[in-house]
Formats: sequence, structure tokens, C-alpha cells
Amino acid sequence: MNFVKESVNQTPIVDTVFSIVAKAKEAKAKVGSENVVDATIGSLYDEEGTLVALDSVYSSLKNLDNKVLAAYAASFRGNPDFRQKVYDWVLNGNSHLEHEVIATPGGTGAVGMTLQECLDEGQTVILPEIAWGSYVLMAQMHNLNVEKYSLFEKDHFNLNSFKTACKKVMEKQNRLVMVINDPCHNPTGYSLSEEEWKEVISFLNECSKTHAVVLLNDIAYIDFSSRQEKAKEYFAQFDQIEKNFVVIVAFSLSKSMTSYGLRCGAAIVLGQEKEAVNQVKIVFEKDARATWSNINNGAMATFVDVLDNHKDAYDQERLHYVNLLKERGDIFVKEANEVGLKHYPYKEGFFVTLSMDNETRDKFHEALMENNIFTVKVNLGIRVAICSLSVEKTKGLAKKMKDILDTVA
Amino acid sequence: MNFVKESVNQTPIVDTVFSIVAKAKEAKAKVGSENVVDATIGSLYDEEGTLVALDSVYSSLKNLDNKVLAAYAASFRGNPDFRQKVYDWVLNGNSHLEHEVIATPGGTGAVGMTLQECLDEGQTVILPEIAWGSYVLMAQMHNLNVEKYSLFEKDHFNLNSFKTACKKVMEKQNRLVMVINDPCHNPTGYSLSEEEWKEVISFLNECSKTHAVVLLNDIAYIDFSSRQEKAKEYFAQFDQIEKNFVVIVAFSLSKSMTSYGLRCGAAIVLGQEKEAVNQVKIVFEKDARATWSNINNGAMATFVDVLDNHKDAYDQERLHYVNLLKERGDIFVKEANEVGLKHYPYKEGFFVTLSMDNETRDKFHEALMENNIFTVKVNLGIRVAICSLSVEKTKGLAKKMKDILDTVA
Repeated sequence: MNFVKESVNQTPIVDTVFSIVAKAKEAKAKVGSENVVDATIGSLYDEEGTLVALDSVYSSLKNLDNKVLAAYAASFRGNPDFRQKVYDWVLNGNSHLEHEVIATPGGTGAVGMTLQECLDEGQTVILPEIAWGSYVLMAQMHNLNVEKYSLFEKDHFNLNSFKTACKKVMEKQNRLVMVINDPCHNPTGYSLSEEEWKEVISFLNECSKTHAVVLLNDIAYIDFSSRQEKAKEYFAQFDQIEKNFVVIVAFSLSKSMTSYGLRCGAAIVLGQEKEAVNQVKIVFEKDARATWSNINNGAMATFVDVLDNHKDAYDQERLHYVNLLKERGDIFVKEANEVGLKHYPYKEGFFVTLSMDNETRDKFHEALMENNIFTVKVNLGIRVAICSLSVEKTKGLAKKMKDILDTVA
Repeated sequence: MNFVKESVNQTPIVDTVFSIVAKAKEAKAKVGSENVVDATIGSLYDEEGTLVALDSVYSSLKNLDNKVLAAYAASFRGNPDFRQKVYDWVLNGNSHLEHEVIATPGGTGAVGMTLQECLDEGQTVILPEIAWGSYVLMAQMHNLNVEKYSLFEKDHFNLNSFKTACKKVMEKQNRLVMVINDPCHNPTGYSLSEEEWKEVISFLNECSKTHAVVLLNDIAYIDFSSRQEKAKEYFAQFDQIEKNFVVIVAFSLSKSMTSYGLRCGAAIVLGQEKEAVNQVKIVFEKDARATWSNINNGAMATFVDVLDNHKDAYDQERLHYVNLLKERGDIFVKEANEVGLKHYPYKEGFFVTLSMDNETRDKFHEALMENNIFTVKVNLGIRVAICSLSVEKTKGLAKKMKDILDTVA
């Protein structure tokens, strides 16, 4: 009995988040919220422990005509005004390349579509060693092999490891597809410097002399960078890409608009030549139509309305939380450094990740839970979701964790 | 230069709808709406030519807490209360099989996922000869071959052709996957009788002795059947399926809730054994996570709220349009029969389709446009979207069309 295709892996997903979220909830019911540190949830929460849903966004959505919410989008690629607005908002004047935008269900849709359509079965995608779990699942679902690059060399991006991974894959296939999740890498909070991006592009340009290059740049958290507009300046480096090289920027409204539930994002395809960008656009449009048909029309209309008519209110609200996130991050990192709790080089973003081998991680994670501190295990580390942790709960947490770590390590 | 996989077909989609919709719009601007018959749009419109967005649905959505709209769904398979409500609403007590529900972006998501995950590349899916265009695109995107069955033998379902198609495919592969779009077939408006369904199930049970059978039943338009609850009674026939046979029911909120733009639907997996249903569930959940991650949370919450708390209002609103649709359909079909304008056996639903060969169709379609009548070409016919055509515009249309047909045929 087999109702699914032979070529699909039937092993169920091992859940590392929902079960821990549930345990944290149980603990709160048992000993009281005030005695539990719940650093599991990967969405932005305010200081009162409530999910942030920006007023500027949801008042815009709720003011839309019902018919706008009800209607199909104008195109399988998304509404034209949405596509233009995404391009303008994300690139912020920093890019001069040929471009096309395809609306997708969140950033997931843009990343998944790229892995599905840019590599044939049996080929290899290059992924960061510490990463959002869905990348590996996507590779598995499309029967791709994975080559991983180590993220850090001391406190900097490990360009050598990145190069080694690319060279290894180039020996096997004629196209290079890699994911760089930057800025605000999930889950370490690292952001490449301008110089690091320059070196990455320069190296990939070399590769493009013999291999087609598709760089998937996942920018899910970009609008919560503490550098704001400055965090978008690295896009100018992409102007240097050669002809045999396209960049696909995976943008998500989930974080930018605090609208995880609306399922809206975009793939922005950038290249030197119209023909290259058009090739990707055609295939992505077909994939979209055959997979989800079109994208949440109200979410697209809201994005356009917020940026056209409520931008000041939106900026003000968002910046409040950008600053709050920075405050939490600064506290945690400062205290961690003071007590010698090792972490990956955090610069900005929703998560800080403590660095350790996986054996220590497993023991530590258990011990933390015994002390009512709930976190999520990632490869080679423990993810601390400062995005959902109040300043008050953040204070003193690093020392508590270090003390617990000392009992198991 | 090739940035996409070798195995993907790069031929752009040939659009047969948007370009005609645009032409109809132009004509209205030129000669006035009152002089144009626009039967192109496949969404439900009221008598004033406005898209229907049910108040009961959108007042529910707009009354949701912003945090419900903002939050991720509770599971990659959709919220538990949504899954339960979909099962209850769709099956309406008519099924006693093991079951699982997976939330999807519209009905498209459920159909696409089934074609993607239930057949390996190079295998064959069985599709109706006259059908929604996306089925063929889905097959192409997953490199599946297509075997078509003729839909009608005189005015009835062509069981012989269906059997022939299945037998042909059984010689080549060990699994049978076929689409039956029923009730309210798009675009002919046919619905199988209880007896026809009985014969289909009985035949497929025979097939299941040697081949795994996956029946994809696309029910996108079911809630606009003029028979309403009675249109769901055929689900009881599925209780007779054998162990080596699963049914996947593709449900869409797009029509049922007039919420095309919200992108919400579900795949309902039915089988005799827990193990069979579970196998499909596991793979679909992985596909969901790797493709769109999760589904519009507000749309799921709205569906539950409408059916829990506003069902009378929703029923009343929906029934008004069910009756209106029936009125339009009755007028068109009666007049078509009077003037001898041939059409496929229409029973209910959004579309009536005139029957003719493709050569006549092309000439007729052009001639209609010259007379400011806009329709959509389908295989072996012309689709008349009575869903968006007022009673007034419907009256007399069949004769006008017949007169024009006589000039080209």
C-alpha cells in the first residue's frame, strides 16, 4: 500500500518548537508566568507578553472594502501596484538591475519556489550550517542534496568555508544555488558587513564564468534591523553581478508588517539582463499558478495602502519595536559576555543563539527546562527568542543560564 | 544561460481569460456597459454587476482581534478547530471513513499537492477532457503525463471513457490518480447522479485489487449547488471504497465563503484505514511546510466563527445567490434549448458551456466579440459565466449567440 510517490521521503517532521512551546505553557499554568522564562516563540511580543500586531497595518486592512478582501488578485504574479511597492520598499533605491517581483505566501513561498525550480532532483543546494529548519526540509522534498557552509570563523562570516562549499558543488553540477540568510540571520542574529558582501559577490562572479549562479538572499527580518535603511545599502553590491548570475531576494511581510498569519511575501528576481530575469519570472509564475494560484489580495492591498497613506504611523510603530528589540539584545549580549556565556556573533534581529556542541546542547536544554527556562534547540546551539522576551525577563537571564550550563558542561 | 532546472517546461502560460476580460472592459468604456455582455468573469457577481462579498463572512473577519489576523496558524496542517469544522461542513454526516484534513491555499493547493505528491515524474494522471486549465499546468509542472477521459456520452457521464482511460494507465503504472470535478463541474455545470457515482466507485474498487487508487474529488463549487445539502449525499458512497483506495476531497473557501482573495481551502483525506490516511497526511504536511508554511489564520478563524455563530445569516445570504444562480442558469438553458444552441448537460454551478469543435469555437469566439459579447474559450466549447451575468443580460442571450453562431458555422 503506497498512496504517495516512491520518490518522497515519508519520515514525519520532527517537531522541535511546538512541543517546547506547549511545555512552557504547562509550566506557566503550574508555577505562574512570572516564574517562567519562555524564550521559545519566534514572533514579536511586547513587554506585556502579547503578540504585536501593528495598528497601522490592521486598521488599514480592516478599512479595505470587503470586495477587495474577497477578490482574486489581478495576476498570478501578484497585483502590479504591490509588485512595484515591494521593489521600492525593499531595494530602497539601492539597485539598478533588471528586476521582476512575484508575490508569494510569505518568505517561505519565495525560498521554496527557488529550490524547487532552480535545481533538478539529485543536484545540490548550498545552505548555512546553522539555519532555519525549513531549508533542509525543502531540499528533502525536492530530492536535493545539501552542502553546508560553516557560518563563522571567529566572529566573522566564514568566507573560506563558503568558498569551499561552492567549489565542491561546482565539480558536480553546472549551476550553483545557495542560500544566504542576511541581514539578521535566523537564528544567530549575524549580519554580513559591506566588505563581506563585496567578497561574496566577487567570488560568485568568478564562479559565474563557468557556472550559472542563483543566489537566494533570504531577508525575512530586514525591517527589524537596528540599522534600518542602512541595512539595505548592501543591495547596491548586487549591481556588480555578472551576466551569468541572478539574485533572488526572498521578502516576507510576516515580520515587516507583523502579519505572519496573512501569508504574503515576494520573490524579487534581480539580474543584469532582461532575458535572465524573464526566464525565472516565467517559471515562477507557472509554479505559482500550479501551486497556490494567487496571493492574499487584502494583504497586498494593505501593504500598498500602509506605505502610500500611513507610512509615518507605520514607521513610528515599527521603530518603537526595533528599539525595544535592540534593548533586549543589548542586555542579553552584554550580560552573556560578562558571565562568559558563549554565543554566536549577534548583531541584530529576533534571536540570539548560544554556541555549543550538540551533546552539551541536549543536556543543557533539559536542565534549562527543569529550571523553567524554555528555549529551542538548533544545530550547534540554543536559540533564545529575545523577540518574545520582555526586558524584565531578559535581565539576569544570561547569568542564570550560565550557572545552569556549568552544572551540565 | 539557464537559471532554472533542466526538467521544467519554460513555455509561458497562454492566457485565455485576462486578455478577454481586458477586451470586455475596453468595450464597456467604448460603447457603454449596457451594450456589452461580459460573461468572462468566473466569480459570483450580483445583479448590479458587483462582486459578491457576503456580509456575514466579512463582518466576521473584520471583528476578529488583530492578533488573530497577525498570528501564525497553530499547525502546518491548519488550526484544529478549522480542520474539524471543514470536515463537519463538507461531509455533513455522510461519511464514516478515517479522515484527516490539511488546510491549503484555496482548492488549488489541495489539487496541486495531490498531483505533486501522489505521482512520480513520468507517471500519468487521469483528467477530464473539458476542465479547469490549471489541472494540465499542474501535470506539466510535475512532469506528469495526462490521460484524458471524455466527459459525456449523450447527456450523461461517460463511464466507458473513464474506464478506458483508467485501464490504459493501469497497464503502465502501479497507482491510479484521477480527478473528478463534481458536483457543479467547471466549466460545464454537470453533476454526477448517485447512480453514476456508485458505478465509478464500484469500478475503482475493482481497480484497487491490483493498483493503489487515489481519487481527487474537486468540489470547489459544491456550496452553490442548487441541491444544497442533498448535493453532499454522494459522499456516503465513498464509505464503500476498498482498503487500497483513498479519496482526497479538494474543498475551497473561495466560492463557499466568497473569499477568493483570502486563499484558504483544504484537502480532506478519506480512507478505510488509519494507516493509509496517515501516510498521505504526513507527506502533505511536509509539502505544506516546505511550500507555503501555513495558511491564512484569519480566514480559518472566520470560517469557524461564521459556522459557529453566524450560520443563519450566512445560509440566508448564500441561498439568495444560489437561487439567483439557478434563475440565470434556467433562463439561459431554456432559451438555448428553444433556439437549438447546443450546450453540455448543465445541472448547476457557475458556468454553462456551449459544445462545438475547436475550429468553430475560435471563429465563433471572435464573432461574439465583434458583437460585444465576451466569453472564454475552453477545450471543445465556449464558457458562459452566468455567475457574473445579470438576469437581465442573460435574457435573450442564447438567441443572440445562436444567430451569431449561424453566421460562422
